Amino acid sequence: METALAALLPPPTLAPERLHAAMRYVALGGGKRIRPMLVFAAGAAVGAPQGRLLTAACAVELIHVYSLTHDDLPCMDDDDLRRGKPTCHREYDEATALLVGDALQSLAFEVLSQPGLHPDATTQVEMLHLLARAAGSRGMAGGQAVDLASTGRSLDLAELEFMHIHKTGALIRAAVLLGALCGGRLDAALRERLEHYAKALGLAFQVMDDVLDAEGHTATLGKTAGKDAAQGKATYLTLMTPRAARAYAGELIDTARAAIEPLGERGRRLAEIARFVVERSF
Amino acid sequence: METALAALLPPPTLAPERLHAAMRYVALGGGKRIRPMLVFAAGAAVGAPQGRLLTAACAVELIHVYSLTHDDLPCMDDDDLRRGKPTCHREYDEATALLVGDALQSLAFEVLSQPGLHPDATTQVEMLHLLARAAGSRGMAGGQAVDLASTGRSLDLAELEFMHIHKTGALIRAAVLLGALCGGRLDAALRERLEHYAKALGLAFQVMDDVLDAEGHTATLGKTAGKDAAQGKATYLTLMTPRAARAYAGELIDTARAAIEPLGERGRRLAEIARFVVERSF
Repeated sequence: METALAALLPPPTLAPERLHAAMRYVALGGGKRIRPMLVFAAGAAVGAPQGRLLTAACAVELIHVYSLTHDDLPCMDDDDLRRGKPTCHREYDEATALLVGDALQSLAFEVLSQPGLHPDATTQVEMLHLLARAAGSRGMAGGQAVDLASTGRSLDLAELEFMHIHKTGALIRAAVLLGALCGGRLDAALRERLEHYAKALGLAFQVMDDVLDAEGHTATLGKTAGKDAAQGKATYLTLMTPRAARAYAGELIDTARAAIEPLGERGRRLAEIARFVVERSF
Repeated sequence: METALAALLPPPTLAPERLHAAMRYVALGGGKRIRPMLVFAAGAAVGAPQGRLLTAACAVELIHVYSLTHDDLPCMDDDDLRRGKPTCHREYDEATALLVGDALQSLAFEVLSQPGLHPDATTQVEMLHLLARAAGSRGMAGGQAVDLASTGRSLDLAELEFMHIHKTGALIRAAVLLGALCGGRLDAALRERLEHYAKALGLAFQVMDDVLDAEGHTATLGKTAGKDAAQGKATYLTLMTPRAARAYAGELIDTARAAIEPLGERGRRLAEIARFVVERSF
């Protein structure tokens, strides 16, 4: 991933140099790369070729990195630390961070629309449509808007999950489906299994994020710990104890694993990622 | 365009309502719609179907509107007025304006990746690639970064045109090529003619923008007049008199019209737009 992203990002010697350096600053050298892992794991389930998966994984990660860069801006979460480094607007400036996010979003679609990426251009168009929809106002950006609107007021579990299904769930779902589409068109049964898996995994991931944010240390997380509570954000821990939250994450992971059980050995990597999500400490 | 955009934008009754209302606020009810006109005019030159052109025109306009929304933000040009209305962050708030721009960019790619938009999916992928590249750091977003970096210092003509070729030229070029691609694959000679046309037209448009910004009235322009000079931005009028700038725009338009002359009657609408660009007063 690191090598592939470094090759896809414009070189820092190309004008505008500062923008290109800042794009590389946020996209390289950090992150759990969960979404790329999901692209590869779903691709493995259908026997998709590695090169195509790598490109799709880069596109999804570029969308994710753009969203982090914008979420950290002063008018949003106003955060100073991300992936163990100063956030983009702290290291550069606000205008540069804004343009970095904008340009990374464009780059994601540029990368995924590479001529000949997929032998079936109709499937490639479908992949682009899926990613665009996942990123937009009925997906990730919409979830971010709900998150903003909910700061300082209490949400019930249904509202909280509506937010997460959009804010992080949409892109996780896109990662899984994109990986599978790298192999070719999807039959309805497989698509449904993968969607169930992705939905449960996405929520489990978010439950654990809230637990780790509350319990974690800034150094391990690479971002400011305890920030959610300090900002009056609704989290799972405003609705349940850490112990209950961990149990809930465990149930969601069981659901995710059950959804892909019929895949047998082909779903092994997807199942491993599910386990990683509840066992991770960062 | 107004009807088509209204149908493509999510309804203001759909959650997140405030974000969707704000997206409609910036995208509907205003603007010269020059880029859509170029899509249609280039499409007319190759006999492309109207419905497909309308979708491509919407995609290009959504990218343009997103860029205006972000350019107006306090960390960028910090503008209060756009298309005769308060800018998005003045009418709503900064975080909403940020997400509006982000979501409009995604929507542009969602719209252009509509299944079956083009009977030749390979051409549709090419259209998506072209738009993504035009929007990114080697196109519009890159031009914006150069613009920011040049504020308060003087540029020579070559530097100024480098900025404009990226900041506005890239999307104007994309509009023309997308319109033509709506008809099918392009032969190299036609593509080259259209690219020459688009490059000269884009620069002429910018020269006239600078003239109108310096001479114009806020009410006619629908944005704050005289802003460029006040912000110490490099413009054509820091390099030449208004009279010389108008003459230069006229020469560029002659170049643009010459490039498409071999198209004959098929290029009539492209030629008309070129005339409009130098004769417009807003």
